[in-house]
Amino acid sequence: MDETARGDLAPVTVAGLGPMGAALAEAFLAAGNPTTVWNRTAAKAEPLVARGARHATTLTEAGEASPLLVICVTDYPSAKAIIEGAGSALAGRTVVNLSSSTPDEAREAVGLAAGFGAAYLDGTIMVPTNLIGTEHAVFFYSGSRPVYDAQLAALKSLGGDHKFLGADPGLAVLYNTALLGLMWAMANGYLHAAALVGTAKATAAEFAPVALDWLVPSVVTPILHSMTKDLDTGVYPGDAGTVQMNLNAADHLVETSRSQGISTLVPSFLRQMLAATVEAGHGEGNYSAMIEVLRKPSDS
Amino acid sequence: MDETARGDLAPVTVAGLGPMGAALAEAFLAAGNPTTVWNRTAAKAEPLVARGARHATTLTEAGEASPLLVICVTDYPSAKAIIEGAGSALAGRTVVNLSSSTPDEAREAVGLAAGFGAAYLDGTIMVPTNLIGTEHAVFFYSGSRPVYDAQLAALKSLGGDHKFLGADPGLAVLYNTALLGLMWAMANGYLHAAALVGTAKATAAEFAPVALDWLVPSVVTPILHSMTKDLDTGVYPGDAGTVQMNLNAADHLVETSRSQGISTLVPSFLRQMLAATVEAGHGEGNYSAMIEVLRKPSDS
Repeated sequence: MDETARGDLAPVTVAGLGPMGAALAEAFLAAGNPTTVWNRTAAKAEPLVARGARHATTLTEAGEASPLLVICVTDYPSAKAIIEGAGSALAGRTVVNLSSSTPDEAREAVGLAAGFGAAYLDGTIMVPTNLIGTEHAVFFYSGSRPVYDAQLAALKSLGGDHKFLGADPGLAVLYNTALLGLMWAMANGYLHAAALVGTAKATAAEFAPVALDWLVPSVVTPILHSMTKDLDTGVYPGDAGTVQMNLNAADHLVETSRSQGISTLVPSFLRQMLAATVEAGHGEGNYSAMIEVLRKPSDS
Repeated sequence: MDETARGDLAPVTVAGLGPMGAALAEAFLAAGNPTTVWNRTAAKAEPLVARGARHATTLTEAGEASPLLVICVTDYPSAKAIIEGAGSALAGRTVVNLSSSTPDEAREAVGLAAGFGAAYLDGTIMVPTNLIGTEHAVFFYSGSRPVYDAQLAALKSLGGDHKFLGADPGLAVLYNTALLGLMWAMANGYLHAAALVGTAKATAAEFAPVALDWLVPSVVTPILHSMTKDLDTGVYPGDAGTVQMNLNAADHLVETSRSQGISTLVPSFLRQMLAATVEAGHGEGNYSAMIEVLRKPSDS
């Protein structure tokens, strides 16, 4: 990249230089953005300064250094302390907070930044540090679309996909949390299935291609896509299979797990969810009707 | 297809003419195999006879009609009654049983058929009736590899993929049952995630592409594939993340579900599985260590 092009890129400050924050700062430096870094313990800035970053020793300096302050710390209280520490130095600037938070914290942060005259965008980083700066990086954002549009050019220095999810500032972290749950649910289902076929000496190396390269993309993904309309309309026609039919089959899964001598925890839970859906009056509806149970607060 | 080629295809008998059995018989007829059909209530044979099938009115006749008897009925007792009904008419022939059964029933059937001098192969049909005879059909088999090899040419008339899973006759049905559990686990995780993002007004139409077209293939599937070695060796190095770290994050998922006012059933279960894995002494291992918990019989 020539020096003229580098000079055109927006200056950026990165606050928080843990492994992920450092990866962000490195990506900005590599892309050619003039990059200022700040960290509570200053020593972490050294390797980045050696690579061309400017070191802000105070939060006022960090805020004033660039039109964009990217925060990447472990939790919302730490992010809040950075915004409050920079204070009026943020006036007329933008904060993009890529720290872990809750939806309510993300919503609160908009007002906190606004109190100092700063625009705010909440985001989540969806990939590990080694993918930052590559085409495989993925970032989610939510809140003000104009703020996202204004900062997208600078954020693209981090590589990969930048998805804007909607106007509720809590959406990005909510997607992040929800998708983590989906990942765990798949992992648990996969591990139970691997344990079950393992009772007949099938290895994970044998099972993985069938489960992951055939069943998931060719069967499950199309089925879940086909639920979209029912989930959004709240109508669950059971023509092609009912919750009650699935509950009967779940009994069979529990019984097979037991007779093969392995844990029934996973299938018993799957059965319990189907039973709860039948109990809620959706026995003749299709599987999507389970969302009616999941949308209600739990008793406990 | 010319008449010479048709004449080369093996004669087949299909016993059981429910929707799936009828689809199998139709596929054999369409491929050009001389096809005999039998059903407990004879009327179901009529549409197939109109398309060129021969109608066996007794099980002896059904057994004698072809070197291969394909059975497709609702459960193992019904399949067993067909094998016993045909009895010594099956001597020197092969039974391929595509009916629902348990692993133990599949193992028992080998001896049952052998008692009448017949070879036996257990199989499961992994797709709905409308895909039978198409390239998207998928069939699993297990048991005797020589029997599978000998019948594969005839079975290919049913279209699609024919996977031989191993020597244990219970494997095909075990894979089928295990994969159904994986499907439910994914579906439940997906529905809870959709309910969670729905609290911030995200629709399933918005969520599905992110969850199903990005997260599942680009993040979760590679992670599950990466577990293969650990699952097969029983060594679970926690360098890149531990069960304990996931348990902490699971607390966050439970709390976010509660604060967003939806059910905590799914995340509480995910948390419970992680807690059980920590309790089993694998807190510093990676996620794959959960299979140690899942391989053990449940208390209840």
